[in-house]
Amino acid sequence: MPPLFEHVTIAGVGLIGGSLALAGRAAALFGEVIGLGRGAANLQLARQRGIIDRSTSDPQEAVRQSDLVVLSVPISSLQPVVTAMAPALRPGTLVTDVASVKAAVLRDVEPLLPQGIEFVGGHPIAGTESSGAAAAEAELFRGRRCILTPGERSTPKALDRVRALWEGVGMRVDVMDPVRHDAVLAWVSHLPHALAFAVVEALQHTNPQFGELGGPSFASLTRVAASAPQTWTDIFLANAAALDRAIAETTVTLGSLRALIAAGDSDALSRWLESARAAHLAWRSKAARGSSPHE
Amino acid sequence: MPPLFEHVTIAGVGLIGGSLALAGRAAALFGEVIGLGRGAANLQLARQRGIIDRSTSDPQEAVRQSDLVVLSVPISSLQPVVTAMAPALRPGTLVTDVASVKAAVLRDVEPLLPQGIEFVGGHPIAGTESSGAAAAEAELFRGRRCILTPGERSTPKALDRVRALWEGVGMRVDVMDPVRHDAVLAWVSHLPHALAFAVVEALQHTNPQFGELGGPSFASLTRVAASAPQTWTDIFLANAAALDRAIAETTVTLGSLRALIAAGDSDALSRWLESARAAHLAWRSKAARGSSPHE
Repeated sequence: MPPLFEHVTIAGVGLIGGSLALAGRAAALFGEVIGLGRGAANLQLARQRGIIDRSTSDPQEAVRQSDLVVLSVPISSLQPVVTAMAPALRPGTLVTDVASVKAAVLRDVEPLLPQGIEFVGGHPIAGTESSGAAAAEAELFRGRRCILTPGERSTPKALDRVRALWEGVGMRVDVMDPVRHDAVLAWVSHLPHALAFAVVEALQHTNPQFGELGGPSFASLTRVAASAPQTWTDIFLANAAALDRAIAETTVTLGSLRALIAAGDSDALSRWLESARAAHLAWRSKAARGSSPHE
Repeated sequence: MPPLFEHVTIAGVGLIGGSLALAGRAAALFGEVIGLGRGAANLQLARQRGIIDRSTSDPQEAVRQSDLVVLSVPISSLQPVVTAMAPALRPGTLVTDVASVKAAVLRDVEPLLPQGIEFVGGHPIAGTESSGAAAAEAELFRGRRCILTPGERSTPKALDRVRALWEGVGMRVDVMDPVRHDAVLAWVSHLPHALAFAVVEALQHTNPQFGELGGPSFASLTRVAASAPQTWTDIFLANAAALDRAIAETTVTLGSLRALIAAGDSDALSRWLESARAAHLAWRSKAARGSSPHE
């Protein structure tokens, strides 16, 4: 059986792009894999690790033969990269991305693609706080959720092929409206990153010596403060309105918690924490069962 | 060689008390272990799992023969439990606790102990979001940090014995002033728990259906929202002032982050995140090397 995609271009061979290359090769979904990037050392490492077959820094050379182009560069690089590669894209080539924000990406990227090029927005919700080809791992996506956000350039066939890609590397795939995706991710991914960075920053400015004493809960909270600053700058700015709402709601709730603590009413505080705990356990249980977001 | 403690009373056979019993027995530090508690089912499970040799709900019976009493009940139960057991404590018995807040505990517990009873405050910084004897595990403490806060009832010998207890189950032991302990823990433990509960509560009231879509960063942030509400009610109230300061500082910093995002200045935002990331990586590196908090 031929691979799902004969020639694959991975634009940005970092944690996500590199892991997809490894996973797609392991699952025999990919023929040749070409890495596009600007960092020579990272591309060399990617070749050495067998993540890609060959590499180039020339966007047109990278995509000329490809039937699949995966955009896995930072959000702020998407427009320049797509503009640069667009003249060399073959009719029939399928383009997809892995960005953590979808409405802005669809708005900015789709119009740059030539006629005959299909585009499906995608967001594999997987990752670690590490970055670069060195961090790539074939099992990164297994059991995780991937959200696809079709747009004006997505045919049903294109959507099916991108679904097959992510299911082929072990993900559970859901389709969602891009604006809804961004509202959800503001809460369940962008807010946790914002809190991790903010707590570290607040502690750094008040009691920097405390940070090294952190126990398990501090380690869990701040783990993602090791994430790549440019990646998260782009995500925060591309989803600014929804993230601002999530931070604002959280701030209001922190105010309520402070009032409860100041009041010293043990029963009321305990009920409040019990209510939060019950919601958390219910979500965790549903997430573990893999229920669809549309249920 | 005889065990470090011949007769040990564990008051509260939950996650911490039960794990200490298992770890202390595994390390041959303990002779007989007596579990004191009110929940018959939990004590029965603790006996079945070999965590304790025998159990009682009578505080005086529990401590009559003991050379070590470990108080591992919720903070709000410390005063009634110590008051109830005090008349039966033998001169020479060493009492210690595991509470996550130290100044209030020393203030409230020490005066309740009869003359001749030594007390050393302790806080093993270990744990999971689970609770009860079912969650106890012998390896819970290994490689973690334990902070001891001696008070007026602590002789050097008593401090040495409590240090030997926690080092014997694999912990790195530091001694700290109780007020400083509470200031540190407000940031590195109580704040992460407050944020986990608050984010869950905020999301529950705005977009409850989003919670089940959480990826790795949401799971890390909210993991401890599964923790026992009564335990955390007690901790939040016993360390109210320091926790309030930590939440207030974090809220101010979140306001700065919102302003940076609203301004849309990619360079300024990226520098801000890079600064936080650098502090995080420096702390993580120091914590991994196990540097003393007094360095």
